Amino acid sequence: MKIALMGCGTVGRGVFETVRELSAVLGARCGRDCVEIKYILDKRTFGEPALDALTVRDVGIIAGDPEIEVVVEAMGGTHPAFEFCMACLQNGKSVVTSNKQLVAEKAETLFETAKKHNVQFRFGASVCGGIPVLRTMFYSMAGNEITGFAGILNGTTNFILTKMIREQASFDGALKQAQAHGYAEADPSDDIEGRDTCRKTAILASIAFGTHTDPDGIHTEGITGITAADAAYIDGAGSRIKLLGIGEKQPDGRIYTIVAPAVVPAGRILADVEGVFNAVSLYGTKVGEIMLYGPGAGKDATASAVVADVLDCARTPGFDPVYSWETKQDGRLMPYQEKSLRLYVRGNAGDKAAALSDIREAFEDVTVLTRDNAPQNELAFITGKAPEKTLSLLLTQIRSFVPAVKIRCPEL
Amino acid sequence: MKIALMGCGTVGRGVFETVRELSAVLGARCGRDCVEIKYILDKRTFGEPALDALTVRDVGIIAGDPEIEVVVEAMGGTHPAFEFCMACLQNGKSVVTSNKQLVAEKAETLFETAKKHNVQFRFGASVCGGIPVLRTMFYSMAGNEITGFAGILNGTTNFILTKMIREQASFDGALKQAQAHGYAEADPSDDIEGRDTCRKTAILASIAFGTHTDPDGIHTEGITGITAADAAYIDGAGSRIKLLGIGEKQPDGRIYTIVAPAVVPAGRILADVEGVFNAVSLYGTKVGEIMLYGPGAGKDATASAVVADVLDCARTPGFDPVYSWETKQDGRLMPYQEKSLRLYVRGNAGDKAAALSDIREAFEDVTVLTRDNAPQNELAFITGKAPEKTLSLLLTQIRSFVPAVKIRCPEL
Repeated sequence: MKIALMGCGTVGRGVFETVRELSAVLGARCGRDCVEIKYILDKRTFGEPALDALTVRDVGIIAGDPEIEVVVEAMGGTHPAFEFCMACLQNGKSVVTSNKQLVAEKAETLFETAKKHNVQFRFGASVCGGIPVLRTMFYSMAGNEITGFAGILNGTTNFILTKMIREQASFDGALKQAQAHGYAEADPSDDIEGRDTCRKTAILASIAFGTHTDPDGIHTEGITGITAADAAYIDGAGSRIKLLGIGEKQPDGRIYTIVAPAVVPAGRILADVEGVFNAVSLYGTKVGEIMLYGPGAGKDATASAVVADVLDCARTPGFDPVYSWETKQDGRLMPYQEKSLRLYVRGNAGDKAAALSDIREAFEDVTVLTRDNAPQNELAFITGKAPEKTLSLLLTQIRSFVPAVKIRCPEL
Repeated sequence: MKIALMGCGTVGRGVFETVRELSAVLGARCGRDCVEIKYILDKRTFGEPALDALTVRDVGIIAGDPEIEVVVEAMGGTHPAFEFCMACLQNGKSVVTSNKQLVAEKAETLFETAKKHNVQFRFGASVCGGIPVLRTMFYSMAGNEITGFAGILNGTTNFILTKMIREQASFDGALKQAQAHGYAEADPSDDIEGRDTCRKTAILASIAFGTHTDPDGIHTEGITGITAADAAYIDGAGSRIKLLGIGEKQPDGRIYTIVAPAVVPAGRILADVEGVFNAVSLYGTKVGEIMLYGPGAGKDATASAVVADVLDCARTPGFDPVYSWETKQDGRLMPYQEKSLRLYVRGNAGDKAAALSDIREAFEDVTVLTRDNAPQNELAFITGKAPEKTLSLLLTQIRSFVPAVKIRCPEL
């Protein structure tokens, strides 16, 4: 089988190497002699004969070649990746992508086009790299209604938080370590501001609840406001801070989605996911909780997921409506402030005894937290459970206390 | 789509309920109006009209009905489940089973028959219930060579070991608790002697390494020899005892498989799997480690996996050679005693100082362990790394020490 590769950066090169190494094995796994890359679409010249011999500059060569069955898009970004994928689908080629931005923003049009031309559009590598999250949601959980998910979807931020928890590193210090290891970009804002997690959360919510979820509609907070002090208080309470992407169907049918740091109790297996690893808990009406863990990024892990999708396209080339969602916007989103939960709050009090008394009066069921070497005026506690907007309002009404950081304690 | 159910015990009833509840949804997920159970093959009368109206006594009725596309086998045991599945395959019906014993013993013949009649034989529920282990190995890891796996494949034994670690329960006390919770059978020997884990390990090894692995060829040890003292020593060393099923391709191409209690370092996510949950780590040349976690048994979780397979059979009814293995016996098994590893050893010494001196002389790199309230003559330690047979021989040569328990420390 002949395939083409659009974009030969990190992921593209991983796909190129995997296909070259395992050509015959991959062929056997989809009922062919072998799998071969016929074209690489890239603007660059690589100075490597194996790559340069295959490189073309015009997507029309790929889209117009009847020998090409599957096209891998590994360019990143929305444009021109979207237009190139469309050209391939319209010419009867299945498309496999690792590009979460493309999927989060353009899946609707891509599904329609794939359906019209009866080819596949697959994106298993777009969320959590090598972890089989999408295949599990689409196929393994098909005998369930999916009621929710919670995931550590970004390795960079999980590495930073792990350093803050385990080594009492500052946020800036932990970020520098992440950059030194090559885990964080020079401009890490997409990761640390939560936008990367938000795009993945939008894809997971679209699959879980069956209708398109726009990333712009998901309330998103990053981890830049978290301090080593918060990590210490929460660790002392037997919990861990994790940046989670959450989606949850409410009893009234509405959908709650949010991307934000969260307090995860140590007994939950998500709390034990450390370093650059990703993990997703999926909840189904029949199976209960399934948790999937592994490398969320990286050249070879992402290539592994891309190649698995390529083989699926070869085995079953026709459009599979199960591997898609309804292209209408989900109108059932619930304002995140309506969600009932507990809040971790850290702040300062002029008179601690008075503040504590006010706090205990304002919130039911307060847990006061401690840490070593806390400044005299610092106070940290976990509120009772109530809608977030109620808790936020109550916090503003306590005159003796100035909150600095709030972190949600979702019920996982 | 019409399906039939053979055996309406716990799993069968879960399938019946799921199909009844989600009939239209499941239909939509495989391109049909609905999914319906037309027959239940069972010797019993249930006294429930919904079941009794569908019950038949003769497999020929199912095998001979051209309306039936997929048959679910949930009878358990090898006979007559094997003969009944064969009758269905031979009449052009895909078969889905949750029966690990049937798969471990008879997969070769069932694959051949499914291939000959171009139908599917699926068994995703046979290992770890609701956790998508098989789908991940067959499909998600298709862009890898699978180099190994290590799994907590039996919830009953994991519950018992968790109670021994967390509550210093005795083995007998923990087993009684498992029975009181309904997690252990009145005769728990299949679980605690490791035979259940062995059958699942045989299936995983067959998939991972591509050729049939006979469960009788896997060295199997249960957990009946483990004491609360061992749990305490190993906990004190920052590790946990888990009953693991392991398969590992060696650098020389031979296959190492074993079922036995193992020392798992606390930093490994498998160490954090507690209670009746199951988890499997899978290792691939490209993806590295993936870990899947969830309910390994139970009516609804197992039904979830069965129904997912039924929908696969409906979408792609033809035989899929990827979802099988070579039916020849694997000749590459390595004698387990040749594996190089460390051993945890606990035993008794008349003269502890003399014994320790002898032990340090016999083994390189010895770590001596401690626990509270240890008897005067008790000694526990972890050896340096060497082939198991070398370590075992050295142990017999230390006259001043009588070993009572040995537990392997595999490198995961």
